[in-house]
Amino acid sequence: MSPEFLLISKYFNLYKTKAYKGIGDDAALIKKNDNYLWAISTDMLNEKTHFLPNTDPFNLGWKALAVNISDIYAMGGVPKFALLAIALPKVKADWMGKFSDGLFSCAKKYKVELIGGDTSRGPLSISICILGEVLKKNTLLRSNAKKEDDIWITGELGLAALGLAKLQKKIQLPKSLSKKAIRALEKPMLHSSIIKIMAKLSNSAIDISDGLIADLDHILEASKVGADISLKDIPMNPWLKKNKLIDIGLSGGDDYQLLFTAPKKNRNKINLLNNMPSIKLTRIGSIKEDKRLNIIDHKDMSYKIKKRGYDHFESK
Amino acid sequence: MSPEFLLISKYFNLYKTKAYKGIGDDAALIKKNDNYLWAISTDMLNEKTHFLPNTDPFNLGWKALAVNISDIYAMGGVPKFALLAIALPKVKADWMGKFSDGLFSCAKKYKVELIGGDTSRGPLSISICILGEVLKKNTLLRSNAKKEDDIWITGELGLAALGLAKLQKKIQLPKSLSKKAIRALEKPMLHSSIIKIMAKLSNSAIDISDGLIADLDHILEASKVGADISLKDIPMNPWLKKNKLIDIGLSGGDDYQLLFTAPKKNRNKINLLNNMPSIKLTRIGSIKEDKRLNIIDHKDMSYKIKKRGYDHFESK
Repeated sequence: MSPEFLLISKYFNLYKTKAYKGIGDDAALIKKNDNYLWAISTDMLNEKTHFLPNTDPFNLGWKALAVNISDIYAMGGVPKFALLAIALPKVKADWMGKFSDGLFSCAKKYKVELIGGDTSRGPLSISICILGEVLKKNTLLRSNAKKEDDIWITGELGLAALGLAKLQKKIQLPKSLSKKAIRALEKPMLHSSIIKIMAKLSNSAIDISDGLIADLDHILEASKVGADISLKDIPMNPWLKKNKLIDIGLSGGDDYQLLFTAPKKNRNKINLLNNMPSIKLTRIGSIKEDKRLNIIDHKDMSYKIKKRGYDHFESK
Repeated sequence: MSPEFLLISKYFNLYKTKAYKGIGDDAALIKKNDNYLWAISTDMLNEKTHFLPNTDPFNLGWKALAVNISDIYAMGGVPKFALLAIALPKVKADWMGKFSDGLFSCAKKYKVELIGGDTSRGPLSISICILGEVLKKNTLLRSNAKKEDDIWITGELGLAALGLAKLQKKIQLPKSLSKKAIRALEKPMLHSSIIKIMAKLSNSAIDISDGLIADLDHILEASKVGADISLKDIPMNPWLKKNKLIDIGLSGGDDYQLLFTAPKKNRNKINLLNNMPSIKLTRIGSIKEDKRLNIIDHKDMSYKIKKRGYDHFESK
């Protein structure tokens, strides 16, 4: 949590809300009807903080919406409507056309309707507000991880951070990995097909935007529990392991994979989802009563990472 | 409409939406229940475009929320929930405290609950997304102005633009007017007490953020009608008339007064609202079938203004 956010969160906490759930999760929740809630969230992307200058505008439009959809999935919800606010330094019709193509492609892919917008002049900044529908009894709160829950994550970690390092010329990568990593950074693909079933089978979830360790920590804090995770089970590109860069997999941001915690009894059902095309769900550990996060290495020793997650106020 | 917005609006219009009302009004509308709709809107404020550097952070927090509340009022709705996304160049605890004070004061005054937020690093930019509740049968669409409707506006026009001109040292003002004008610019006060009754008595509405003429034009275009308005009836500070600066009253932005169009038969009922404390509703003209906007001066001649409204992409 950034120092600013800590500051403003004090104000939020002073505050009794009629919302079903206010600040402190991937999305706020308000009542829709007896069985459903609206999940509402906003995420802003700023040039130089969240994306590099000259990022492909199609990908930027895609990502600006995708990171918001990801917040709805992390509540176990289905995204429905979005509003866009964008500031641009000057009129660039070609740029805006490509940006809109990317934004609306993402909207079409994940069945979100753009229903409003505001454009203005200013340094490039994109803010989207998203509304999704959540079945109340299947809502995935950060605060609902239970002792003995399995911890599952989708996909592979560290690719987006690798892509960023490559674009910043901090790292050399094999050509095919380079392409894959930059694509992961700029055009995150989400896991729409498993959300409803995972919402039913899980107790809690978060999207991995700030890095696995930082985001798992958010769940542990909110749920007042700890976790053991096994380093060898964490899915990351073999190149990272081979080059001893596993901290990038553990704490690199921007992957937009999902982390779920689910009761042991659902383990087989969840494993079956791996038969679906392009779904990869990996069990990386379990929730413990003791409020520590232990990363266990291949020698059964506790592993210490140097960098715990990604803070938007650090220089990237 | 800015060139960017024209561009992106093409994409919006390609698009069949399940929303009750998508892009093109002060807020989008989605179904809440059989009788009510959710009105949802987003407005972004950027330093140097929407406010000057070193603007008092309390007032900025107030205004960032107030301009969004104003969009809900312009739909005839009651604001309920808001989410904040803010980018800040660096950590300034004192600034953030004052900004939050202003934001939450405005929230308290107009009974809005802040339910979510996102803070990040970047040039100062504040984006708020707001949700309000509208009684479906009283929704005030821009497209619903009817021939012969009276045109009403709240308050007084041109004060905020005067305040800006003063801060930019483009104008000399008497001390008391200077204070009032800067206050109108930086801390707009809204007309919460008349919304429900005006929603019942009116056909259409818009908030005057881009200037009277530009915003009235939005109603006329959407409703495919025209209007006659009487220059002498337009409420503006006497100083503007005395100094022959009435174009500032006609096209100055940022006043956040409301414009309603209402059937003639409701004229007396609306006039009665002027007995309420600090309410001023002025009838400035009427809607005509002929699709022109005529401004009629004291000699019954057509008045031509030089500057039609405020475009956020022009330099202020």
